[in-house]
Amino acid sequence: MTDLRAADQVTPEIRGRIQDSFDRQGLMAHLGARLSRIEPGRVHIVLPARPEVTQQNGYVHAGATSAIADTAGGYAAYTLFPDDTSVLTVEYKINLLAPAEGDHIEAVGTVLKPGRTLTVCNLEVFGVRDGERKLVATGQQTLICLPKRPDR
Amino acid sequence: MTDLRAADQVTPEIRGRIQDSFDRQGLMAHLGARLSRIEPGRVHIVLPARPEVTQQNGYVHAGATSAIADTAGGYAAYTLFPDDTSVLTVEYKINLLAPAEGDHIEAVGTVLKPGRTLTVCNLEVFGVRDGERKLVATGQQTLICLPKRPDR
Amino acid sequence: MTDLRAADQVTPEIRGRIQDSFDRQGLMAHLGARLSRIEPGRVHIVLPARPEVTQQNGYVHAGATSAIADTAGGYAAYTLFPDDTSVLTVEYKINLLAPAEGDHIEAVGTVLKPGRTLTVCNLEVFGVRDGERKLVATGQQTLICLPKRPDR
Amino acid sequence: MTDLRAADQVTPEIRGRIQDSFDRQGLMAHLGARLSRIEPGRVHIVLPARPEVTQQNGYVHAGATSAIADTAGGYAAYTLFPDDTSVLTVEYKINLLAPAEGDHIEAVGTVLKPGRTLTVCNLEVFGVRDGERKLVATGQQTLICLPKRPDR
Repeated sequence: MTDLRAADQVTPEIRGRIQDSFDRQGLMAHLGARLSRIEPGRVHIVLPARPEVTQQNGYVHAGATSAIADTAGGYAAYTLFPDDTSVLTVEYKINLLAPAEGDHIEAVGTVLKPGRTLTVCNLEVFGVRDGERKLVATGQQTLICLPKRPDR
Repeated sequence: MTDLRAADQVTPEIRGRIQDSFDRQGLMAHLGARLSRIEPGRVHIVLPARPEVTQQNGYVHAGATSAIADTAGGYAAYTLFPDDTSVLTVEYKINLLAPAEGDHIEAVGTVLKPGRTLTVCNLEVFGVRDGERKLVATGQQTLICLPKRPDR
Repeated sequence: MTDLRAADQVTPEIRGRIQDSFDRQGLMAHLGARLSRIEPGRVHIVLPARPEVTQQNGYVHAGATSAIADTAGGYAAYTLFPDDTSVLTVEYKINLLAPAEGDHIEAVGTVLKPGRTLTVCNLEVFGVRDGERKLVATGQQTLICLPKRPDR
Repeated sequence: MTDLRAADQVTPEIRGRIQDSFDRQGLMAHLGARLSRIEPGRVHIVLPARPEVTQQNGYVHAGATSAIADTAGGYAAYTLFPDDTSVLTVEYKINLLAPAEGDHIEAVGTVLKPGRTLTVCNLEVFGVRDGERKLVATGQQTLICLPKRPDR
């Protein structure tokens, strides 16, 4: 059991490089998003619902929903990448299933198929109100592992 | 020729309802995006590159790129919808072709196939520097036309 | 327990209309595919690997993989549709994760989000050899429920 | 002008390796598809409409439509790849815009963005009757260039 839990933990190094990379994303800070969970192959990001992230009907904008979904999937892949690499999104597809509403929304990116060059992730976004979660978007994403450039 | 030009113009009513809807999108204002062109079946949105919309390497974040692409496609469809309807994104897919950099990025949504219920749009995003445009993302989007609810 | 099992069964009417529709698909017969399981919101289709369905390296062609994935998702949605309706694929996206090889491949279409007009399915395809299953493709699909036309 | 036309021609070597690869695809022969045009970055494939490729309403099955679209995009990319490489589809997304009907359908794959590792193509499928072409499907595809293995 202890071992299993250990296997579900990322190393402090990985956690550090992901938090560090996230903190350099101007958009995440500007939207008010934060990393809420980092596991091997799975990352959660939370975005409080507030007027700055809405679409015309007051729900969270698909663009904000997608932004945290894409970011969660990218870092989920990044937990499995070697040192001295960086991660880029090749493409993603997202279905918006229901209005994104709640106190906050939460994106969960999960690696479906890791690879040396390409990694495929599943993306889910939930609307959360009073602890109740409702699936509001689901997607699929392809990422590429690149050698780290000095400036990254 | 005059007729053709006329045909390329949306009516003031359509322009008004799109600008009005756009202005109610908290996210667009928060990102600093603006509608730059509204034609029948085609809408452009411009987003200045600034620290608030970046990813970890200083390029415009895929989430911001996607947000304006999705919005441009949605309003491109909306130019062709009847009064008393609203538009929702069903799904979209986007390929990120190159780092989104420049003075600003510009999204162009274009209706490929209009429909009574579903409309399909092509999405393009360009990085623009000193007037030079470079394609940085391309996508495909499905939208649905819904009867307008009293609160929309 | 009994109730639960009952809930996992489609009615004979639904099973009949799906098998009947499947049997009218010239492509499925021509490829050699067959319906292997019909549950509420989930359908399996099996395709034996044979030279008629290969790509240039001898694996099952992505087109054949996609054909049974699309069909499995379509009928998964159709299990939940009312009588006198038909189902059409609006769009799908599929990632090919590994070479599709084995004695046969098996597609599983599962409804993620049912809807009155639009339904979203998850698509999975497995390569199966000697009972061992390996995920070779994963996708996401949007379907529309239409009133049945007299000729359908 | 002559130069321009020359630039629109693939070399006999490229034409040969594409035709050769196509001929090894059991599925294309089984469906009755043929390569109808090979240009740098663009390939056309034609599929006669016949009972063996239909869905339940007698139209060409989305699976057959997708199969030739995917193949056309793959070879369009392959026209631009170096010798001793092979091409694999990473993923694609396709919208089915209208029933695929006609004497035959024609898929056109066009490279949107070539790359050393990844190439992105636009996919279009037309229903053709008496020379009239109607767009029935549109898609977007990501391909990867791999070193050729001895057996490929």
